[in-house]
Amino acid sequence: MAGLEKKQYTLSRLAEIVAGTVVGDGACLIEGIETLQEAKKGTISFLANPAYEKFLKETNASAVILSESSAEKCSVNALVVQNPYLAYAKLSHYFNYVLSDVDGIHSSAVVHDLADVDSTASIGANAVIEKGATIGASVVIGAGCFVGENSVISQSTRLFANVSVYHGVTVGERCIIHSGAVIGSDGFGIAPGPDGWSKIAQIGGVVIGDDVEIGANTTIDRGALANTEIKNSVKLDNQIQIAHNVIVGENSAIAACTGIAGSTRIGKNCIFGGGCGVAGHLEITDNVHLTGMTLVTKNIKKPGVYSSGTAVEPNAAWRKNAVRFRQLDSIVSRIKKLEKDAES
Amino acid sequence: MAGLEKKQYTLSRLAEIVAGTVVGDGACLIEGIETLQEAKKGTISFLANPAYEKFLKETNASAVILSESSAEKCSVNALVVQNPYLAYAKLSHYFNYVLSDVDGIHSSAVVHDLADVDSTASIGANAVIEKGATIGASVVIGAGCFVGENSVISQSTRLFANVSVYHGVTVGERCIIHSGAVIGSDGFGIAPGPDGWSKIAQIGGVVIGDDVEIGANTTIDRGALANTEIKNSVKLDNQIQIAHNVIVGENSAIAACTGIAGSTRIGKNCIFGGGCGVAGHLEITDNVHLTGMTLVTKNIKKPGVYSSGTAVEPNAAWRKNAVRFRQLDSIVSRIKKLEKDAES
Amino acid sequence: MAGLEKKQYTLSRLAEIVAGTVVGDGACLIEGIETLQEAKKGTISFLANPAYEKFLKETNASAVILSESSAEKCSVNALVVQNPYLAYAKLSHYFNYVLSDVDGIHSSAVVHDLADVDSTASIGANAVIEKGATIGASVVIGAGCFVGENSVISQSTRLFANVSVYHGVTVGERCIIHSGAVIGSDGFGIAPGPDGWSKIAQIGGVVIGDDVEIGANTTIDRGALANTEIKNSVKLDNQIQIAHNVIVGENSAIAACTGIAGSTRIGKNCIFGGGCGVAGHLEITDNVHLTGMTLVTKNIKKPGVYSSGTAVEPNAAWRKNAVRFRQLDSIVSRIKKLEKDAES
Repeated sequence: MAGLEKKQYTLSRLAEIVAGTVVGDGACLIEGIETLQEAKKGTISFLANPAYEKFLKETNASAVILSESSAEKCSVNALVVQNPYLAYAKLSHYFNYVLSDVDGIHSSAVVHDLADVDSTASIGANAVIEKGATIGASVVIGAGCFVGENSVISQSTRLFANVSVYHGVTVGERCIIHSGAVIGSDGFGIAPGPDGWSKIAQIGGVVIGDDVEIGANTTIDRGALANTEIKNSVKLDNQIQIAHNVIVGENSAIAACTGIAGSTRIGKNCIFGGGCGVAGHLEITDNVHLTGMTLVTKNIKKPGVYSSGTAVEPNAAWRKNAVRFRQLDSIVSRIKKLEKDAES
Repeated sequence: MAGLEKKQYTLSRLAEIVAGTVVGDGACLIEGIETLQEAKKGTISFLANPAYEKFLKETNASAVILSESSAEKCSVNALVVQNPYLAYAKLSHYFNYVLSDVDGIHSSAVVHDLADVDSTASIGANAVIEKGATIGASVVIGAGCFVGENSVISQSTRLFANVSVYHGVTVGERCIIHSGAVIGSDGFGIAPGPDGWSKIAQIGGVVIGDDVEIGANTTIDRGALANTEIKNSVKLDNQIQIAHNVIVGENSAIAACTGIAGSTRIGKNCIFGGGCGVAGHLEITDNVHLTGMTLVTKNIKKPGVYSSGTAVEPNAAWRKNAVRFRQLDSIVSRIKKLEKDAES
Repeated sequence: MAGLEKKQYTLSRLAEIVAGTVVGDGACLIEGIETLQEAKKGTISFLANPAYEKFLKETNASAVILSESSAEKCSVNALVVQNPYLAYAKLSHYFNYVLSDVDGIHSSAVVHDLADVDSTASIGANAVIEKGATIGASVVIGAGCFVGENSVISQSTRLFANVSVYHGVTVGERCIIHSGAVIGSDGFGIAPGPDGWSKIAQIGGVVIGDDVEIGANTTIDRGALANTEIKNSVKLDNQIQIAHNVIVGENSAIAACTGIAGSTRIGKNCIFGGGCGVAGHLEITDNVHLTGMTLVTKNIKKPGVYSSGTAVEPNAAWRKNAVRFRQLDSIVSRIKKLEKDAES
């Protein structure tokens, strides 16, 4: 990638970081990380998925992170660890681009006199920090971000450019919030009456735990009365919609384009595929996995993998089958009749 | 919520606002609004859903908004009204956080000399108002918003931070537009030709009525030739996509993540669940309800509730059933054969 | 649309532009473009869809773009071309609103000393251009946009207001990127470990070809190691999610609200309807069409039209059929039994 300033580490140093063992030349210099197929001399790669073992022979990497069982098939230097994917995750940060964050408050940023900005925080160009907001130590607020009144961004959290945080929102420590995310917008609360819809003021806030990541253009609404809550270590991908008073349990990970309707509670360690929809006022227990585009309209009380929908097929066949779907109940009646006739 | 400045009203005053009757102590002071379960002394709660009547006995609220039929089961002060949910909606605004809007035009905002900004409007930090734009009385434009050339934001409308309004867009009175919403982006108009796609200029605008609410990161495209139109009192949740030349009829409410394709007309008083998709060039009549994640590919001419899709089930069972779905048409052939055989 | 400055062309001039033939008065002045039904005197319209031929008699347009076969049914001036829709696409730009772009760098924009901005580029109010970024000739960067470190925006590309481009992103020539789009956000890369999720640094970039259009609030994640790639002439509608390391082939067009999961490769000339979901690590060949809301969970190796899902129906019927869907596998067992009994 253009602009990536290369860094150099000896293989031994990298082994130290992930508590691994070098097989080969520990003094070998590594200055990048690549896939087995695309690796060049001077880079390290990793073997986490056995399906890729075939690339081990032909890789140009100078070293490969792998498990003991694959070590002997490795023709270059090996960094042997228990969990190669996790080791790769840890080492990846050593080769990442380091952004030149603003030193302190950029002259074009608008910070209210009554905001409390830590002296070690970085406030980007044209960012706006409102009255009563608290920006913690080592926080980075990207260019064009908005942090509303009395909101709290806790230490070591990073907001990329153009994030909008409404008033009365609390974000924990070491969170990452990507561009275009909106935290604390009004929940969709409207009451029907004789003259049409009446808006219900959304008085609650949003409380986001520590180590949460929030993807680009994801939206998290404030609560109607109580708070919307995203617990510690939750990982949210892009374009997710979290409605008012939802609670997402610790360590759950949700893929892009999923929507969770109001007041639903999602357990811990859940994994939702992309494009799912979960109706409102439901309870989803811990360790529930949803495959992509699943619609959930009732409580899920048992851990496990759940799905809905149908699988892709050529349109001509699908048209016929979709027609039959609408006849399903009558089809079953016909079968019942056949069964009855067969009995008699 | 941190930063919420409490306000105090006597119960009698609140009763006056919603034309209700106090049973108990009208002088009782109320300084917040909470659910029955979470209410503390000094707050008012409401009973709108009979399922929550069980919490009436044990609530710590100082008063409860309820209907006459529930009044005698209420052990604390009661505020008796015809429609408790609607009364709650109205009173909620009396306990909402009041934002400290900028007084006039913030010094960092960029307002074109040929823009017409009412003296009572508030233009937030780093907002940009382009040539020929009109900003009405008591309008609030949030920080970082963009209002394009010749667009009109009518009186008492509020744009939260980082809203983008393109040129030639008209927004009515008392609208609320949430952060990240984009109004007036080009419709997806491309014509295939021998050299690939040719873009079709999107010359139409967007006309948004009065009392419309538009959720965070919702997008409303400008028309190809005529306008895209959102009629009075329409309520749009977050991350909704409204394509070019769509017309959404009065008082319709659409939940998050729904997409409406080009030139489709949606009637009045429709309610769409989240994650729905409506194909282009369709007519959906008044009073149509869609349940969540419904796909509509044909006109709907009769009011009523409509659905599509399948319901969630354990993945192992779903895999088998999804395979059978693709055999549905042949399954029906097998039934026909059985029926024929049985007849003969 | 308010603010549209009308332009005038003779019909002969318009015919010249699209290499068409005038039947009637070539000196006729045209100052707008409208649909057949809504056209007023002085405007030109077009007939591309035979279903609209009925409007040809009653149109008030001063001229109509049409094919030779319809010419004799046209009672007003005709502009005869081979492909009326394509000719309309080309001419539409001659009647489009012309934005008053900033001349050079707006005084409120924040451009890093080490950014390279071409003297013919336009940088809008409150835009931020970071260190090492390159802004090409005739590029227009809208108000409030962010262009990250070392990113490249090539000549004649336009970013509308409030677009976020992270570091290390390359955008080709003549691209159009709509408001709220986010290019280069981190891919959703997390590795499970004994202490929960570990973030994987997203070291790759995004490379966007020439003549690409990207809709409002669309998100394109940067690659984990290699780049995410959007090839030449790809057209992306609003609110699309492109995950890390996806490759979208030349000339493919994707409608709104579709999500493509990580590492999937989409061929050339594909057309995806709105709301589709494509799982990760798949190969979709060239010329694949997906109808709206299709879920793809396996490779598609043959060009053609594909679908999944079920079609809308009244909710009461749907409830019954959806229950039967979950019994499908057992229904087939019942049929098998009937068949076996019939045989014996």
